Amino acid sequence: MREPKQERAVRTRAIILRAAAEVFDELGFSGANIREITHRAGITQGAMYFHFKSKEDLARALMKAQPSTVLPHTATSGLQGLVDLTLVWSHQLRQDVLLRAGVRLTGEQNSFGVHDATPYREWAEVLAERLREARAQGELADHVDIGSMADFVVSACTGMQMYSQVATGRQDLSERVVAMWQHLLPALCTGEARASIDASASRAEALTHSGVPVGERIAPSVLASRGR
Amino acid sequence: MREPKQERAVRTRAIILRAAAEVFDELGFSGANIREITHRAGITQGAMYFHFKSKEDLARALMKAQPSTVLPHTATSGLQGLVDLTLVWSHQLRQDVLLRAGVRLTGEQNSFGVHDATPYREWAEVLAERLREARAQGELADHVDIGSMADFVVSACTGMQMYSQVATGRQDLSERVVAMWQHLLPALCTGEARASIDASASRAEALTHSGVPVGERIAPSVLASRGR
Repeated sequence: MREPKQERAVRTRAIILRAAAEVFDELGFSGANIREITHRAGITQGAMYFHFKSKEDLARALMKAQPSTVLPHTATSGLQGLVDLTLVWSHQLRQDVLLRAGVRLTGEQNSFGVHDATPYREWAEVLAERLREARAQGELADHVDIGSMADFVVSACTGMQMYSQVATGRQDLSERVVAMWQHLLPALCTGEARASIDASASRAEALTHSGVPVGERIAPSVLASRGR
Repeated sequence: MREPKQERAVRTRAIILRAAAEVFDELGFSGANIREITHRAGITQGAMYFHFKSKEDLARALMKAQPSTVLPHTATSGLQGLVDLTLVWSHQLRQDVLLRAGVRLTGEQNSFGVHDATPYREWAEVLAERLREARAQGELADHVDIGSMADFVVSACTGMQMYSQVATGRQDLSERVVAMWQHLLPALCTGEARASIDASASRAEALTHSGVPVGERIAPSVLASRGR
């Protein structure tokens, strides 16, 4: 039986994005080229250009896909959800080449003439959603500005992974995330909430070594063909 | 009268570093080349190689020079000193091409095969010194781990300037620094200290628009010839 056309397109797009992620993760934007990506994906140049019109187009798709590599692995809400997103992110950055390529490209984008704050803003929106839940659940201290805090955590995570990358090859990234919450949580949450939030190294371990299966939600948002 | 040899060497080194900073700031590490830097500095290739043996050597010198572009502009100590360093840094990043090149190269270093945490660690040490002063002055809350907090502020500043660069061309960087202190100070300092620390937008304005002269300390640390 022939595979339906739409499913085949989604599968091809997934194969291309993974090949592109591997090449970008290894060589960065300037070092990567479409021919190598096409070769590694085992597809024709025609198939490539049907899905992505340029190297920049591929880079943008990977930059945009970051939250979808983390979200399916967290089920918690409110402040615990916020903490868990950052813990899972710090682990996935070592495991998931799609996330790693997205992060590298977001940092390098100036060097290839792109100035796109969307990847930062989309992360901030994901975190802001958890902060709004926290406010609704009475966990968030009154003075906290949700937009400003979400932006700050995105910035801090961005910088921590850069520092950690050159200092330890990202081996200490989860420890740095745990330290961030030690610095932020006391002012962030109400007294009652503080006791119930687990932002410890042991939770980082548990969340990241439990073999959480990749959620189904990853497929539509990263892989859906944009109808080219 | 002939200029003494050592003074001439320091002056040449300063001219080379400024030319290199301009070129790296514009084109990044991969886009820059020694010929263009030599041309812009108006020196011979021999003079260049007397001071810096390679493009990487130049890049390392600029990465290392970052704190010396900020320190001479702050005179305060303790927590106010810590806050002022970050406010001045956010301003200097828009004004000082040496600092801007150092920051860009530090972020790009992976792409040219360097993994050097020294620039991050040197910033962290500068901030840790202010935190130790704060502890001695009784400003710092007991639970604060100085090394971890210093590392965290360096990470946060690194990420804020990246986010701010693509979002607003760094126009909102000082506002982001002010927001960072709103998030951090409540847990960072003792109740008495909190009232006396000014981390407001108006202080950022005052510090950065008062035309503070460049201190003398900038010369020896950035410009001293390493005896090549």
